[in-house]
Amino acid sequence: MDNTKQQQQLSNLINDKLAELDLPSEPSLLYDPVRYTLSSAGKRVRPYLTLVGCGLCQGEIDEAVPAALAIELLHNFTLLHDDIMDRADKRRGQPSVYTKWDSNTAILSGDAMYAKAFKQLQYYGTDEHYSKQLYSLILDIFLDSAETVCEGQAYDMMFENLDEVSIEDYLTMIEGKTAALISGALAMGGAVAGAEDEQIDKLKFVGQKIGIAFQIQDDLLDVIADPKKFGKKKGGDIVEGKKTYLSLLALKRSANDQKKELLKLLASKENTSQEITKVVSIFDSLNVIQDTKSAIEYHYQAAIDRLDAFKESKYKTELITFLNRLISRKY
Amino acid sequence: MDNTKQQQQLSNLINDKLAELDLPSEPSLLYDPVRYTLSSAGKRVRPYLTLVGCGLCQGEIDEAVPAALAIELLHNFTLLHDDIMDRADKRRGQPSVYTKWDSNTAILSGDAMYAKAFKQLQYYGTDEHYSKQLYSLILDIFLDSAETVCEGQAYDMMFENLDEVSIEDYLTMIEGKTAALISGALAMGGAVAGAEDEQIDKLKFVGQKIGIAFQIQDDLLDVIADPKKFGKKKGGDIVEGKKTYLSLLALKRSANDQKKELLKLLASKENTSQEITKVVSIFDSLNVIQDTKSAIEYHYQAAIDRLDAFKESKYKTELITFLNRLISRKY
Repeated sequence: MDNTKQQQQLSNLINDKLAELDLPSEPSLLYDPVRYTLSSAGKRVRPYLTLVGCGLCQGEIDEAVPAALAIELLHNFTLLHDDIMDRADKRRGQPSVYTKWDSNTAILSGDAMYAKAFKQLQYYGTDEHYSKQLYSLILDIFLDSAETVCEGQAYDMMFENLDEVSIEDYLTMIEGKTAALISGALAMGGAVAGAEDEQIDKLKFVGQKIGIAFQIQDDLLDVIADPKKFGKKKGGDIVEGKKTYLSLLALKRSANDQKKELLKLLASKENTSQEITKVVSIFDSLNVIQDTKSAIEYHYQAAIDRLDAFKESKYKTELITFLNRLISRKY
Repeated sequence: MDNTKQQQQLSNLINDKLAELDLPSEPSLLYDPVRYTLSSAGKRVRPYLTLVGCGLCQGEIDEAVPAALAIELLHNFTLLHDDIMDRADKRRGQPSVYTKWDSNTAILSGDAMYAKAFKQLQYYGTDEHYSKQLYSLILDIFLDSAETVCEGQAYDMMFENLDEVSIEDYLTMIEGKTAALISGALAMGGAVAGAEDEQIDKLKFVGQKIGIAFQIQDDLLDVIADPKKFGKKKGGDIVEGKKTYLSLLALKRSANDQKKELLKLLASKENTSQEITKVVSIFDSLNVIQDTKSAIEYHYQAAIDRLDAFKESKYKTELITFLNRLISRKY
């Protein structure tokens, strides 16, 4: 998916500021992986949303930059640790830190990035424009996001050892793993702008819905996207036996022989392309693909609807454009 | 080393408050290891020092409890991750989290503990007795400690791959790995009490000296302590070829054949007790044992001397008693 012009401008602002971060040269084993991670071409969606969240609440965009950087650093910290846990060799097309160095280095550099994220927020602790209440609120939102991400990752790990997981539990998991940071990103932008609690809650809701929709969409694209554009092997989640919105819905709806067959296909770690096609056709026969599409649209639409509560502004237009592009993303 | 009565009281206060921490029951994979870690019998030296630091600056001890808990949580977070990196099976006589669960669980529970540590400090963000400046200062000290601990651990990992390390670099490493948290612990107590910057700097200095002395002493006790009381195998550091104050000083002072022999003995991972005795006798012949004892005393004494700058109080008496007991610890 290509960026809108404004998204590109805001992402460039984030990239410039990330490049300006004053990271020590030593110990190199700690900070080289941090530099390596931050210089890779991330989409910067979360910090972009922090800046937009600030704009939505009539704040000064530049004032939200430290919060946006904190969110991006926190996100990258979770990636470093997640890549170890998921044994992911690649990240953004490059070797992950865990592969390029080793898992100890990835643990430690992640920890250092976590501290660097908090240090960004000290801007609001020293700048006199921010009251103590506002500074504390910004930290609260940040901490809640950080904690909920850990909880989501823990649920994900726990679910790996279960045969079946309810859709409700799956949603709890992605609300942590994917939505918490997006929700926190938008809300921090609002907090920086000095928005009322009620507005901030709305931003959290919007972020949560975006996160849920985005993750379910990722699950869907695994089976319907053009693998070349999506950058992942078609049916990769099926081969890995990952619990996705689609597989859980299909298991819930299937019975007897069909359920047995589905469980067997999902349990196998070496599916042929014929087997993947078979799984997709089971999904289809149970109306799973269509209902997943509806669920994605439902969550995105809930996010867009909640934006009614915000004044018209170029940031509101921008965010709606961004969301409409997300809804129709094909990879 | 047994605790003084006051130390015991303050440690009990910390243990009670740790037990009262309101940790969620789910996800159990995230919070069970946190509960397990916090319930183990740690000495609680760091939070004790936070409370004493507060008392030294005429603050209310109870007010320093959240800061003390934050420091203990941060310390335990570093232990969870360190045990993975060092492949340490045991911690405080119990299986480490990394062993009892697995390394992914230890990474993630550590991360959650990190967030919980920060959450403790939100007390100073909401209680109206604390100005924004003070709240921000407490976070600054905390963040600096967290970051410096990571740097120390990184140097430690880097030094593993070097043949020789200068005493200066070794001190930089332990200033991070061991002293930063002790220094931060004392300084946070002072900050909570509203002490002047100058007093806080003195507390940092005292903590740094205690940390350096304590770590060098640990290196010394590895070769001279009664293994039964010390709880570690005699010469364990020699067997593992760890870079200690003693081995680095000995390498610096030795030459030619003696140096070659020493390097060979330190490089071997399966030393006999005769070989360990040989290494210790080389240390002795180079005056390393005696000079290490002097270094320990020098750093402890520097800490005690700096306490002159603080008013007489039961906390000052307490800390001096505590330090004198540390100086003469035999295990």
